[in-house]
Amino acid sequence: MQETSLSDLEVAEKMADAARSVILPFFRQSNLETDNKLADGFDPVTVADRNAEKAMREVLAKHRPDDGIFGEEFGQSSGTSGRTWVLDPIDGTRGFISGTPTWGVLIALNAQDAPFLGVIDQPYIGERFVGTSDLAQVTGPTGTSRLKTRTTQSLDQAILFTTFPEVGTPEDRAGFEAVAQNVRLTRYGMDCYAYALLASGQIDLVIESGLLAYDIQAPIAVIKAAGGVVTDWQGGPAHNGGRALAAANPQLHAAALEILRTY
Amino acid sequence: MQETSLSDLEVAEKMADAARSVILPFFRQSNLETDNKLADGFDPVTVADRNAEKAMREVLAKHRPDDGIFGEEFGQSSGTSGRTWVLDPIDGTRGFISGTPTWGVLIALNAQDAPFLGVIDQPYIGERFVGTSDLAQVTGPTGTSRLKTRTTQSLDQAILFTTFPEVGTPEDRAGFEAVAQNVRLTRYGMDCYAYALLASGQIDLVIESGLLAYDIQAPIAVIKAAGGVVTDWQGGPAHNGGRALAAANPQLHAAALEILRTY
Repeated sequence: MQETSLSDLEVAEKMADAARSVILPFFRQSNLETDNKLADGFDPVTVADRNAEKAMREVLAKHRPDDGIFGEEFGQSSGTSGRTWVLDPIDGTRGFISGTPTWGVLIALNAQDAPFLGVIDQPYIGERFVGTSDLAQVTGPTGTSRLKTRTTQSLDQAILFTTFPEVGTPEDRAGFEAVAQNVRLTRYGMDCYAYALLASGQIDLVIESGLLAYDIQAPIAVIKAAGGVVTDWQGGPAHNGGRALAAANPQLHAAALEILRTY
Repeated sequence: MQETSLSDLEVAEKMADAARSVILPFFRQSNLETDNKLADGFDPVTVADRNAEKAMREVLAKHRPDDGIFGEEFGQSSGTSGRTWVLDPIDGTRGFISGTPTWGVLIALNAQDAPFLGVIDQPYIGERFVGTSDLAQVTGPTGTSRLKTRTTQSLDQAILFTTFPEVGTPEDRAGFEAVAQNVRLTRYGMDCYAYALLASGQIDLVIESGLLAYDIQAPIAVIKAAGGVVTDWQGGPAHNGGRALAAANPQLHAAALEILRTY
């Protein structure tokens, strides 16, 4: 039972709007409250993170009470519809606490685990990348335009992004570097914004590892809608997280996969 | 002789406005014309780069005809005033061609080489960081606010940025990594935007090498105005380029310098 006549995309946009208004007042504040989720690492959670997920869950409680929810901050809430909203209120918390404008609010909707709707929202820039089965678009400071991935066919013409040069395990890093040494340009530090750039036709490849489902489901849906391909390093589904290879088109995906699948 | 009654900052802002309007139509266009400046590397120059410097030089020809100009694209033009405008129309061309919103227009004004006015402008976000002898402020999507660097005193609490993990020569890289292993968090890929984040009180240290004068003079002026310190790795002036250490305050600068000066 759906409580309202809003489309799934309209619900997702309401959620992104709610997250924006909760998070922005915390961004670039000097007294940001952070605490460490991992005793041995640096993975801050902010009040903004938690409050934004609460705000998104309130939208779902009103407009999609029968759907399940899986969020970074508050975990799994089961539903009866067979559909699940997958939420990362602030993807890129290290970037967030550093003031960079490349973190994002990630919202995905899936059925049988395959995400078919995704939103990557960057509140500070005021930029929203959306992908569904019949729409792929970005709205931002310079207006609205269609998302369309590049046609780059060979690795030696490709621009590759990942978030950290350390990448993951030593084996993950070796796989990444094996691709990196064949591309035109490798860049770092963009968090989820790298996937948005790939969907926008600005870059060609994103390779990451150690992902969780909520890190990758929204990018999968947005990139697929824009013409790209996202899988794990064996060519299988990436929506449960782990290692991800996102490529602008099937040919380039195949070229990178040939290298990565040996790691 | 000055042709108009505009202040230096007003002239600089006119230049930044002119550069914005020239560059933005080229940003994220799929048919961006690029060519390689270095046969063995990847250092694209765009039409936007050249046209933006021309537009800035036209503003100076009208409003500051007696000042010298040193620009990335068209080199040195001598003046008679003893003052020189130092221009980098697109700092971070690799970021620019990748669609990231972290490249910038850099404008500095110096006398006897020491920059006393700086502008770091990010046209896509619509964000401008300004530093003079009596002003340090940012104007952007969430309004105008004062720039003030952080009070972080020890390296183990510091957030460090640099653009490439490769940094520079093997010795440059070793120096960078010697500091990096002592800090709380290291991030990459922000180009000149990292200096703006330091001036904004979001991060604590930026360490780079292989810089040219037009890469660093605007950051020096903006960071100094906001309370920070920029020198080379020996504690001397950084305005001629080379290796740079930017820190949020003198204490933190001293802590990083103690490590870097041995490299």
